[in-house]
Amino acid sequence: MQTFEELQKYFNEELRNQSFDRSPKELYAPFEYIISLGGKRIRPVLLLMACEMFGKEATAAIPQAIAIELFHNFTLIHDDIMDNAGLRRGYETVHKKFNHPNAILSGDAMLVYAYQYLTTADEVLIPSLISLFNQCGIRVCEGQQMDMNFENTINVSVDDYLVMIELKTAELLSSALKIGAMIGGAGESDAEHLYMFGKELGIAFQLKDDLLDTFGDSGKFGKKMGGDILQNKKTILLLTALQVADLDTKKELKELYSPSETSGEAKIKKVLDIFNQLKINELTDQRIQEHYSNAMNHLHEISLTREKKQSLLQVAEMLMYREY
Amino acid sequence: MQTFEELQKYFNEELRNQSFDRSPKELYAPFEYIISLGGKRIRPVLLLMACEMFGKEATAAIPQAIAIELFHNFTLIHDDIMDNAGLRRGYETVHKKFNHPNAILSGDAMLVYAYQYLTTADEVLIPSLISLFNQCGIRVCEGQQMDMNFENTINVSVDDYLVMIELKTAELLSSALKIGAMIGGAGESDAEHLYMFGKELGIAFQLKDDLLDTFGDSGKFGKKMGGDILQNKKTILLLTALQVADLDTKKELKELYSPSETSGEAKIKKVLDIFNQLKINELTDQRIQEHYSNAMNHLHEISLTREKKQSLLQVAEMLMYREY
Repeated sequence: MQTFEELQKYFNEELRNQSFDRSPKELYAPFEYIISLGGKRIRPVLLLMACEMFGKEATAAIPQAIAIELFHNFTLIHDDIMDNAGLRRGYETVHKKFNHPNAILSGDAMLVYAYQYLTTADEVLIPSLISLFNQCGIRVCEGQQMDMNFENTINVSVDDYLVMIELKTAELLSSALKIGAMIGGAGESDAEHLYMFGKELGIAFQLKDDLLDTFGDSGKFGKKMGGDILQNKKTILLLTALQVADLDTKKELKELYSPSETSGEAKIKKVLDIFNQLKINELTDQRIQEHYSNAMNHLHEISLTREKKQSLLQVAEMLMYREY
Repeated sequence: MQTFEELQKYFNEELRNQSFDRSPKELYAPFEYIISLGGKRIRPVLLLMACEMFGKEATAAIPQAIAIELFHNFTLIHDDIMDNAGLRRGYETVHKKFNHPNAILSGDAMLVYAYQYLTTADEVLIPSLISLFNQCGIRVCEGQQMDMNFENTINVSVDDYLVMIELKTAELLSSALKIGAMIGGAGESDAEHLYMFGKELGIAFQLKDDLLDTFGDSGKFGKKMGGDILQNKKTILLLTALQVADLDTKKELKELYSPSETSGEAKIKKVLDIFNQLKINELTDQRIQEHYSNAMNHLHEISLTREKKQSLLQVAEMLMYREY
């Protein structure tokens, strides 16, 4: 069993070995560009880890790990166009670096390549791999649509939001784990528990992201806190606040989040005051712990020794107990 | 064996029976919209026809026919964004009717659904179906990129152009036929000849399209001729003219096609005069006949009776001898 860092290093080497230096070069340049921007490679590494857990070498699952990373990058390219985002990991987004048509088309091609890598597998596995991947692709698109819809309405419930992040964020993480398990030779029940582990971990991960944006430790990495508040983003913090607040506070919050409201530090402070008064930090942390605990229960159900599950447990802890 | 019209009617019924009335509705409304715009359904009908040729009922290949039509519509939605096109079949394009983010995301989801329909098949067929479909998807994207690249350079050779339409247009047609053959139970050699038949027919079809835009019978359907000339499109007519013209004529043509040149009837007339003088109509027709004849040779090689090939031959003739 290799650690996260070992598998990450191994995966990055394998990814770099894939040559996307093809023709027409305008189609493939965005592949090389976005791959070069790096990232933690959480999803492909979890996939490889799941494969190893069930006793196969990580190398057996490399094509599928690449498939998951390509799929993830396809969603980043297209989401950045839809969100009109200019920066990704501190660098220009693909549609800024190149252009819109190019970014749309390269994203499309990247999705097709994801399918090609995915199905570079033992023939008996292909039908179930593809069926899982199709389901994942559809759900991720549905989640992105929900996310876009939320921008135009204040009436988003906590439950709506949880469904959205389950689709948009958790589904790909859980599918990555299940694919790794399938390649590794896991039985259906173990694969399903790993899938559910990924779901719950993915939800907890996104909620933690929301929490850190507002209550994170800005000192450590100089990351600006409160970006979500300034952008009027509907995070779990805001939606929980709207759920538990009295009528007056709810009205105040809605006004603070209305498009007409002037932005800036003053706004962040006012919203933070309300969040603190309503104990949103604690309520959210509770919710994260619930999902994390569900994840642990599913991990527990998997019919492997504690030792085999150790690497995965460490990743889960790393994702949960980060402070930035 | 059913005729084109019979299969077209059958396919349209089956397509209408697919319910894309799902949630979130913003994601699926473009599915229903673009399907409602109609079209000749040439690719799915050819797929069903190929399946019947080899002795299976058309119904066996309905999911794959839907897959091909969804893939085709995904390309239309995204191409219309890239080309900034406002109209498609006389109606608003998807990104005009809805919006850009919606059109990008619905197109993405449509591509995933195409894979889902494609792989609704006998498990033993799935690996080869998916491998063919992946290759097709990649080539279509490459063709679209080449087509976009051609807009920004006058130096496009006839050979470049033929490669581009082979990828962008012919590949999907030939893949549709081969998929139908595979579902129908054809042997590898027959399936390959049908694929090559589709390639050559697809190229001839696109060249015919180019020819008709300039030299078509405008009287019959009141279609405005010369649109390609007005839009400075690099068609086989222009590229052949640039190939065979003397230096002075070539210079004149390049000036007529420069962005600064004023458009209008006068430009169409000047270009037409050059085309006529160079016998571009005849040269193009010759080229079409060559590809058509290649297609016929491949059809001939297929190990079925002449009677079984009759429907396909009729479609080929229909596509070739249309005058609009």
